[in-house]
Amino acid sequence: MTSKTSTQAPLATAPYERVAELLRSRDRFLLTGHVRADGDCLGAQSALFHVLRSLGKSVQVVNPDPLDPRYEFLRAHTPYTHFDAQRPEGGIAPFDVACVLDVSVIERCGAVADRIRASKATTCVFDHHQPSTGQSWDVELIDSTAPATGVLVHRLAARMGISLPVQALEAIFVSLTTDTGWFKYSNTDRETFAVASELVAGGVDPSVIFGRLYQTNPPEFPRGVGVALRTLRYEAGGRLAIVSIRQAQMAAASAELHDTDEVLDILRSVGKVDAVLLFRENAPGRVKISARSKGTFDVNALLKPFGGGGHLRAAGADLPGPFEETAERVIGAAVRTLEASPPVT
Amino acid sequence: MTSKTSTQAPLATAPYERVAELLRSRDRFLLTGHVRADGDCLGAQSALFHVLRSLGKSVQVVNPDPLDPRYEFLRAHTPYTHFDAQRPEGGIAPFDVACVLDVSVIERCGAVADRIRASKATTCVFDHHQPSTGQSWDVELIDSTAPATGVLVHRLAARMGISLPVQALEAIFVSLTTDTGWFKYSNTDRETFAVASELVAGGVDPSVIFGRLYQTNPPEFPRGVGVALRTLRYEAGGRLAIVSIRQAQMAAASAELHDTDEVLDILRSVGKVDAVLLFRENAPGRVKISARSKGTFDVNALLKPFGGGGHLRAAGADLPGPFEETAERVIGAAVRTLEASPPVT
Repeated sequence: MTSKTSTQAPLATAPYERVAELLRSRDRFLLTGHVRADGDCLGAQSALFHVLRSLGKSVQVVNPDPLDPRYEFLRAHTPYTHFDAQRPEGGIAPFDVACVLDVSVIERCGAVADRIRASKATTCVFDHHQPSTGQSWDVELIDSTAPATGVLVHRLAARMGISLPVQALEAIFVSLTTDTGWFKYSNTDRETFAVASELVAGGVDPSVIFGRLYQTNPPEFPRGVGVALRTLRYEAGGRLAIVSIRQAQMAAASAELHDTDEVLDILRSVGKVDAVLLFRENAPGRVKISARSKGTFDVNALLKPFGGGGHLRAAGADLPGPFEETAERVIGAAVRTLEASPPVT
Repeated sequence: MTSKTSTQAPLATAPYERVAELLRSRDRFLLTGHVRADGDCLGAQSALFHVLRSLGKSVQVVNPDPLDPRYEFLRAHTPYTHFDAQRPEGGIAPFDVACVLDVSVIERCGAVADRIRASKATTCVFDHHQPSTGQSWDVELIDSTAPATGVLVHRLAARMGISLPVQALEAIFVSLTTDTGWFKYSNTDRETFAVASELVAGGVDPSVIFGRLYQTNPPEFPRGVGVALRTLRYEAGGRLAIVSIRQAQMAAASAELHDTDEVLDILRSVGKVDAVLLFRENAPGRVKISARSKGTFDVNALLKPFGGGGHLRAAGADLPGPFEETAERVIGAAVRTLEASPPVT
């Protein structure tokens, strides 16, 4: 009597048992995830790698893209590799089971998706996003109420009675903090903190993880934040904050801004601001847009007509230039939407 | 057989029983704290106020200084007042017990200290700082291993079997997050997260508290951060980051910077930086210094000879000008100390 629904309450046992049975019964595992793997995807992979190793299994972790340098420290205890088109099969050895983490849409696994499709392997997904319709996985552990995919692996290890090494606990902590914005987003729930407490009891030092994730910026970074903030302008009566990052300005100031999260955070810290738009000139003639919302303004809906997407409160798009003209079109759409809706107080 | 030491292990029962007995047996309570009360001091006061109200006691909360506007939202459920020299007794009604929170040095309670000394009241301290020598309190709840004073009140309420309203739980969450730098400082321990989990289970929404504490900046604030970052310079081979905030520069840019925490955070995010110095011209001819350390560099020791102080990793001073000259003296002292010690890697 197992449930057939994809979204499980945290205490539902059946899907965990099905996954545990799969992990115990097979031998060669491929772990992968979505393109541009983030901290949750990588952290959950690391934790699952350690679960499988403790069961004596053969495991390879192959992502569609190279490891983001921010997460390089996780590599010391987890053998992350990435799909290499120069090698036969992209460098992927034969496998019995493909575990896909932090995504349930196979198309988002880049070149690794083709290897999985071409194989006869059993497919198993671990995810906390809303399940997509029409995708078929052999075994599913999908719970959209979980704050992070790493939490699903944490629950699985606990149910299987597997004690994880501190490096795996650190990886789960990275999962947890990446997807909750270091405990400040609205998905930060009772379980988030309960799991964090267990991880710290197991030896994780939050200040050390914070330092590794967020305190390795180059010396040019603060100036980059300053240059970006200099371009600030408000629209829609101060409810929309806009900054632009142009390559020439950054170069002129000997500044650097590989990561715009700090800038977005500072703009969101303004009381009156409902939404933030950050325009960035990466390649010549391309405009990368990051949109954030603090409340009910739906940035996903804003960027959909421009070919972008994401979530209600965080979305992105990558458009052809010219820079100013493209930016003004998106700003215009945002202003119209904001002016049609009263401010949230 | 009760222990006479001030520093108690979290599970030591005796001091909690003594405080509980005091709260139950007396009627009129004054709650106070240190000058320029912060989130931990105010949060712990709010929680203790609710404990006492649930016991049917008469309670007044009188701090040495007016409430920092950042914590104004706590006032809805806790009647914070401050010492008013224009009123008899500073506006303090007669009391049987004075509860001092988040400090154990009576001199740091400003004008309220004199009212306590002049009274015949029983004194009771709740604190998580290292206990000072030579101070005498009638009842002490001092535990320097606790992440925040609010946690001591949380433990007390639990031991007394008192169920706190959600507003008191929010106040304890404010305590916890203020003193752990929103879960990122090295004092963030297993209990910090366990208490946070309980508070969320009781109805606290972390994202709402984050918004109230950190997302109410004026529109001029991001520009203020930008202006400050423009002054960045490095010394000691990039291990010391220095910024200066001058009134004229801020005014010229229509910028505002009431709070420098964001700037200090951005400077600390640079991998190579061991210490940060922020110089600020508040009143003409006065130089306010904020010093931060990421590792072993002791900013408290740095500022002691200049009449300032604080902790190993966060200290401050307020010196007479002229601005440039004063700043250079402090920078010189910091560079000498850094150059005498190898970088921590």
